[in-house]
Amino acid sequence: MKTIKDRLLSGDKRALARAITIVESGGKEAADLVKDLFQYAGRAHLIGITGSPGVGKSTLVDALVSEIRKEGKKVAVLAIDPSSPFTGGAILGDRIRMQDHTMDENVYIRSMANRGHTGGVSLGTYDAIRMLEAFGFEIIIIETVGVGQSELAIAKTADTTILVLMPGSGDDIQAIKSGIMEIGDIFVVNKGDLPGANKSATEIIASLELTHNPSGWHPPVLVAISESGEGVERIWEAAKKHKMFLEESNQLSQRRKNKVQSELSEMVAEIARQNLAESLERSQEIRDALADVVAGKLDPHTAADGILRNIFNHQVEA
Amino acid sequence: MKTIKDRLLSGDKRALARAITIVESGGKEAADLVKDLFQYAGRAHLIGITGSPGVGKSTLVDALVSEIRKEGKKVAVLAIDPSSPFTGGAILGDRIRMQDHTMDENVYIRSMANRGHTGGVSLGTYDAIRMLEAFGFEIIIIETVGVGQSELAIAKTADTTILVLMPGSGDDIQAIKSGIMEIGDIFVVNKGDLPGANKSATEIIASLELTHNPSGWHPPVLVAISESGEGVERIWEAAKKHKMFLEESNQLSQRRKNKVQSELSEMVAEIARQNLAESLERSQEIRDALADVVAGKLDPHTAADGILRNIFNHQVEA
Repeated sequence: MKTIKDRLLSGDKRALARAITIVESGGKEAADLVKDLFQYAGRAHLIGITGSPGVGKSTLVDALVSEIRKEGKKVAVLAIDPSSPFTGGAILGDRIRMQDHTMDENVYIRSMANRGHTGGVSLGTYDAIRMLEAFGFEIIIIETVGVGQSELAIAKTADTTILVLMPGSGDDIQAIKSGIMEIGDIFVVNKGDLPGANKSATEIIASLELTHNPSGWHPPVLVAISESGEGVERIWEAAKKHKMFLEESNQLSQRRKNKVQSELSEMVAEIARQNLAESLERSQEIRDALADVVAGKLDPHTAADGILRNIFNHQVEA
Repeated sequence: MKTIKDRLLSGDKRALARAITIVESGGKEAADLVKDLFQYAGRAHLIGITGSPGVGKSTLVDALVSEIRKEGKKVAVLAIDPSSPFTGGAILGDRIRMQDHTMDENVYIRSMANRGHTGGVSLGTYDAIRMLEAFGFEIIIIETVGVGQSELAIAKTADTTILVLMPGSGDDIQAIKSGIMEIGDIFVVNKGDLPGANKSATEIIASLELTHNPSGWHPPVLVAISESGEGVERIWEAAKKHKMFLEESNQLSQRRKNKVQSELSEMVAEIARQNLAESLERSQEIRDALADVVAGKLDPHTAADGILRNIFNHQVEA
């Protein structure tokens, strides 16, 4: 019987789906699969798309996929579902809309849940990207609802990050002004047929001019109407141009190094959290410390110090 | 000279502001201050208010503060600013609106930044709540933009969590249906003068009826118009009733235990992240491992294992 690795490498989409489910679940099986396949990864152009709910990210992703397919490139979409009580619906909508592409052999769309408070999500996401790269996707679009820290972290680890806004989202533009411009490599004012689109674009351009820009890349600000596809070609051109810029200026490897560092940071945090959870099961001493904090007999910082010593001594001995 | 502790306990608001700034920054000074003051903490009714951007959370908080003040109770508001490029503006708006209350001795309003991707935020938030409790606030409202994991975590650790929606936010209601009902202790359909308010309320009630409810509390679904204050009194009554329910059913202490556990979990994760960052500075070996992952020579899971062993051996030896 062929292994998942062999089937995935030979282009079996069911094996790909299974592989992503495995890495999403984490644990030893996931680590083993990544060990088998990581050498085939690291070759795609990762495009992060983020923005507030309602700005039309999913329609834009849909239109971008069509644009990319015109060039014959294989493209995957990873939609990160924040599993929050407030945004799940939008992602459901995406899944339905994206059915336009489901008959296309060279398009793959997958939602990933961002479950729990453990951040474990992101870990699965990094490995899911590896699976998609090993399968041979040349472009991977990572769509996030850019309001949570972990979504933002994922967006930032893309090679090219597209920030999507809509006309009149004054709060967004206000926030962008307040010093977070560096996240976006490309700015898109979507729903460009609504009043105020050009004004919004002008405002973004004006704030970009005030922003310190160490990379040497000048983020384009593009107006688009994703619904009709207007302006989407220019977004795709800008994304390719940005990738080329990163390669020519030797910044691509730095970005990828940052990405691996973020991933490792998430990993060690997650391992520490798991160790705490297991220790609470195992150790009466740790449960007592927790109870003492609740009772106001012990302060939390002293408790955390003691617990950490307990946890990691155990681990090192093991 | 009086210490910050003494000044804070004697009702000096400048000392309170300083104390929150200290715990927000973290480190040894923060830990020491918490050690001094944690015994005075744990007494307030913590009310979490969360919901998508634009549903009118800040107006509702404003109206709730007025309602609480009618009873003469001391109330503090902690607005968690997610520092995301997409929501900062809304919080700026809050600060301005809340100026209605700034002349009131017994109201305190503070924004806290949720900076970085490290989750370190939440830690400062827990300690800021302790400072407010030590100062003597009887009610503490924690306002979050409920789309990120860390905001949600904070909301969940409140005694009473109010989920705010607005009419016609079909996505929200869809998402609530998909199994996250248990987060809300009270549901508010805000902007109740907009069309569809009662329909939204009915939909929420219908989904609540399908939800398994182990606590025995039946979350009320209330329609309000925060702008005019209509319906806000009933929200405050519901919050008090919920607190009483938790006390009478002995669930308050369980909630507080969960809160401390979440806090400890965040703490150990943050310490692990910091150790990684410091190790990268210190150890060529770890930097090499990182470079090998980037180069595709080493898989990330094996690298993380090695790095963890390195980090925590160091820590244990130290």
